[in-house]
Amino acid sequence: MILEKINKPGDVKKLSPIEYNQLAEEIRDFLINHISKTGGHLASNLGVVELTIALHLAFDLPKDKIIWDVGHQSYTHKILTGRKDQFDGLRKFGGMSGFPKRNESNYDAFDTGHSSTSISAGLGYVCSRDCQGQNYSVVSVIGDGALTGGMAYEALNNASSLKTNFIIVLNDNAMSISKNIGGVSYMLSDIRSSDSYIDFKENLANSLYKIPGGSRMVSALKKTKNNLKQIILPNQLFESMGIAYLGPVNGHDTEKLIKTLKVAKRINGAVIVHVVTQKGRGYKQAERNPSKFHGIAPFDVKTGNVLNKPKNPTYSSVFSDAICRLAKKDKKICAITAAMPDGTGLTKFSKWFPDRFFDVGIAEEHATTFAAGMAAGGMKPVFAVYSSFLQRAYDQILHDVCIQQLHVVFAIDRAGLVGADGETHQGIFDLSFLSSIPNMTIFAPKNDWELKEGLKFALEEHNGPIALRYPRGEACTDFHEFKEEIVLAKSEILYKEKDIAILAVGSMVKLGDEVRKRLKARGLNVSLVNARFVKPIDEKLILELSMNHSLIVTLEENVASGGYGRAVCQMINDTKLKPRCLEISLPDDYIEHGSVDILMKEAGIDVDSIEERILSVHKEI
Amino acid sequence: MILEKINKPGDVKKLSPIEYNQLAEEIRDFLINHISKTGGHLASNLGVVELTIALHLAFDLPKDKIIWDVGHQSYTHKILTGRKDQFDGLRKFGGMSGFPKRNESNYDAFDTGHSSTSISAGLGYVCSRDCQGQNYSVVSVIGDGALTGGMAYEALNNASSLKTNFIIVLNDNAMSISKNIGGVSYMLSDIRSSDSYIDFKENLANSLYKIPGGSRMVSALKKTKNNLKQIILPNQLFESMGIAYLGPVNGHDTEKLIKTLKVAKRINGAVIVHVVTQKGRGYKQAERNPSKFHGIAPFDVKTGNVLNKPKNPTYSSVFSDAICRLAKKDKKICAITAAMPDGTGLTKFSKWFPDRFFDVGIAEEHATTFAAGMAAGGMKPVFAVYSSFLQRAYDQILHDVCIQQLHVVFAIDRAGLVGADGETHQGIFDLSFLSSIPNMTIFAPKNDWELKEGLKFALEEHNGPIALRYPRGEACTDFHEFKEEIVLAKSEILYKEKDIAILAVGSMVKLGDEVRKRLKARGLNVSLVNARFVKPIDEKLILELSMNHSLIVTLEENVASGGYGRAVCQMINDTKLKPRCLEISLPDDYIEHGSVDILMKEAGIDVDSIEERILSVHKEI
Repeated sequence: MILEKINKPGDVKKLSPIEYNQLAEEIRDFLINHISKTGGHLASNLGVVELTIALHLAFDLPKDKIIWDVGHQSYTHKILTGRKDQFDGLRKFGGMSGFPKRNESNYDAFDTGHSSTSISAGLGYVCSRDCQGQNYSVVSVIGDGALTGGMAYEALNNASSLKTNFIIVLNDNAMSISKNIGGVSYMLSDIRSSDSYIDFKENLANSLYKIPGGSRMVSALKKTKNNLKQIILPNQLFESMGIAYLGPVNGHDTEKLIKTLKVAKRINGAVIVHVVTQKGRGYKQAERNPSKFHGIAPFDVKTGNVLNKPKNPTYSSVFSDAICRLAKKDKKICAITAAMPDGTGLTKFSKWFPDRFFDVGIAEEHATTFAAGMAAGGMKPVFAVYSSFLQRAYDQILHDVCIQQLHVVFAIDRAGLVGADGETHQGIFDLSFLSSIPNMTIFAPKNDWELKEGLKFALEEHNGPIALRYPRGEACTDFHEFKEEIVLAKSEILYKEKDIAILAVGSMVKLGDEVRKRLKARGLNVSLVNARFVKPIDEKLILELSMNHSLIVTLEENVASGGYGRAVCQMINDTKLKPRCLEISLPDDYIEHGSVDILMKEAGIDVDSIEERILSVHKEI
Repeated sequence: MILEKINKPGDVKKLSPIEYNQLAEEIRDFLINHISKTGGHLASNLGVVELTIALHLAFDLPKDKIIWDVGHQSYTHKILTGRKDQFDGLRKFGGMSGFPKRNESNYDAFDTGHSSTSISAGLGYVCSRDCQGQNYSVVSVIGDGALTGGMAYEALNNASSLKTNFIIVLNDNAMSISKNIGGVSYMLSDIRSSDSYIDFKENLANSLYKIPGGSRMVSALKKTKNNLKQIILPNQLFESMGIAYLGPVNGHDTEKLIKTLKVAKRINGAVIVHVVTQKGRGYKQAERNPSKFHGIAPFDVKTGNVLNKPKNPTYSSVFSDAICRLAKKDKKICAITAAMPDGTGLTKFSKWFPDRFFDVGIAEEHATTFAAGMAAGGMKPVFAVYSSFLQRAYDQILHDVCIQQLHVVFAIDRAGLVGADGETHQGIFDLSFLSSIPNMTIFAPKNDWELKEGLKFALEEHNGPIALRYPRGEACTDFHEFKEEIVLAKSEILYKEKDIAILAVGSMVKLGDEVRKRLKARGLNVSLVNARFVKPIDEKLILELSMNHSLIVTLEENVASGGYGRAVCQMINDTKLKPRCLEISLPDDYIEHGSVDILMKEAGIDVDSIEERILSVHKEI
């Protein structure tokens, strides 16, 4: 076993080149074996094993900086930097993160999670290095999917004027999480299939790095020697921006990768190294279905089947059925995704209504304004998106959708705590940033039925911007005895008593009910309200509640600032009797990875903690 | 006078082609004459007079849709659509907006204000049209500056797969508000200066539109006829993405523009029409200094000098001096702008410290993550930006700066009401969206001294993300008798009495003091606090105030949700005596254009309104 020799950073440098291939195979086995037990990102990591080995051999870490775009492909990097033994705790609470974390290792140069940030961060490092007269290499590793995100282009545009070295490795596997979309993807596939994707010739490479200057070098060579096209295909997009281009290189040939990276190091300016990899490589199931094995729960290695499938339908699948049913009747309904047809539950829609389905690439900003344009043109667009990714489109929601009060429906999945993906992916800010926006309506369903009805309300009754936010995973299927009609700005009263009123948002209704039962068992009187609308809040009801309740408790899976509790508290402050408010929300902090149950407990929004806090405040009154 | 014949939409179509040039000249005189009196955007509008006339002649409005990126170049469009008489009220309260507004005219297809949205919105219209089987043209007019914004690229990438017509007019004047930056700009200047920018030949154009298909058409022609290069230079960037390209065309030749646009109309797919214009054309002062005449206050037509210059220095200039002084001592301080060196006050810095100055183009998302990268590399970046544009970078602040607690300073200019630019430019959400982000510190100075000291604190004392937010225009130079040292999370007490406490944020301290004086004159006891830190709030002080004040008034130039008042109110709710809170902030609404004084009154945050509201609530207690 060669992998046994890899225990601390730098160990990989002690291997001999003939061992590289075997190491790669052993790492693949290690990854398949471990991820099948813990769950995690598999396909993307299997694709970059040789690339990661090559980066570690061609560069001198941690002096040199590698920035992993998105970061879900950093597992081999973690193995090579002394974290092999931590894979049993991968993505578990207190265990190793599935993403690079500066506070986990000084070999992780920059924290990532969302797409398309690596070139910006890398360029920041480069300029910082140059300002301080330091001398190290900076490498941003970005996928072709992430390259559809606008900020990657902003960064490329900015990098083009650079006079010092900056290496951008384009990890091209023709995939985002799902199949890739758009003009850049079309261009890359053109290059991949061209004659130029052939052997790297060392003698040409040698002549190459003697000539200084990025794009000038490439174009000079182009003119003099035709056969140089075999190793350098000036990619139009990058070349036209003045960025040098090397490639394409076989991403599973470690030695060629090392040689190319060493050439790239000698270029003065920004240089793209175009590396072609296969997502899921080495595990047949993942090669065949990389999208399924992008982020996966524990699975059976032999069959590739996920273990412990959820019993209830997920909210994503409830949404999936609901939108298809509505779209059958109403031809104006269309659906938009930013490269997440599977995750958001839009795959079925895309098959049933291909003409009304729009996958715009990893581009939440564009998706939002595109939706605004469609609404202005008379359609009813539904943008299905994860909560944490919608953060990207704050300005577009505010500036392009809500000023004009356009009828755009935001179907916000993964709202609240998402678990194993951690800090970058928790959907715990949407109530805040959406509440700050005028003309926005925010609805949070308590269960599967209410998501269906909420979507119907959003598309058929409402006319203006509206967001439906619902959590990751299994839908709550309780409370089917409560089916009050949905009316704008009206909450639903589940239990009407007095003294203590619990107002819960969406997923928190179930917890609120459990707390209610416990408090009842203690002989207390408790009302329970399903808030439904976080904006506008149900002022009339809150006023009523303030008359005969001494304590108003708000429950939400969101940070406090700008959330539901603050709006309720402000209103209560103006009432005559001013009952005490207890705002139960997430702390003003990022929340790490781990199972949602543990995170809820840690954050103080599990049933025990909530009960305790209510009792303690109730005693004070 | 030909302009006299232009009174309602469609009138321009009744002119004969020989009148076009004179019309353009008359429109220029009209614009110079009016804007010199009202102020407004001049240089950009002078640049697109012929282009606008050509668009109105080549297309059939309002059936066809024109989307003006940013929208500050839509004045000629307004003249041609029956709004000539409204120019006296341009950008005044109740008068005509300086931007396209759907609720102002059905000839305005989409509201704009921020940069780089037009291709997304246009593509939305196109897809909406196609879904509904409608038949009209969609034209997005975007500047080369706006093309450095990432979402424009996301939209281009998405548009590349389009099979139906969509026209993107690239209005290329080699400028953003200031001189343009980056790889795309370099590429465009390459094209502008090439041989190909010569006469348009009709016979070739005729042969052109008989061939269907965007990029295939162009490349087919390239191969067959060399002289076609004279009218079609396949722009590498667009061509490589699979988008057809026509141009460059002289943007001041109306008839050639019309012919090119008609060619563009016949292409199945997205097509870029590259139009070269001169910013400020026809007014010598603006041609020489287009940046100064981008957005300008009333000026003397003869000299170009601005009338009524402010007496006090602006906050921008206070910031300008302060950062230069600090950067002289500390070589780690660097400055970043997103295409706004003049507006943000960084021009001096760029001259004093060119190696530490970074203009990244219209790219707030990239700018923020770039700053994060620089901070990770050991520098102290200051990103100077307008409040409303920082909305673009919400996710990057949250995800790239604040998770890692990187020491990035956000110098947020134009925070609060900005006046004449209206809805899209009011900086009234920053306290909300920034407060929702963990690890963020928010500071608002009461006057010029405090901005200087605040910047010093941010760079020398603080270590982590921090935002300084200050308003547009003249700095407050009062309160120089109050110079308490700046300490994190500590407010500054200006007057300590009892009964009523006014806690004011930044610009509102001055108003708070005026209200205080009036209330004193009525015999009331009033404390006045300069909040300084909106996050974290001064909990200790608020607790103290709650002991001997019956009314706590918060004043902020920001929407209520997620703002300072809500945080204070929540805290007060937990205190023993629970004084009444009065949250004075901006309404949950967009605020139109007009002078700041009038807008403050309309929004209920002028001295009269505040006094009245305090008295009314105080009576109730």
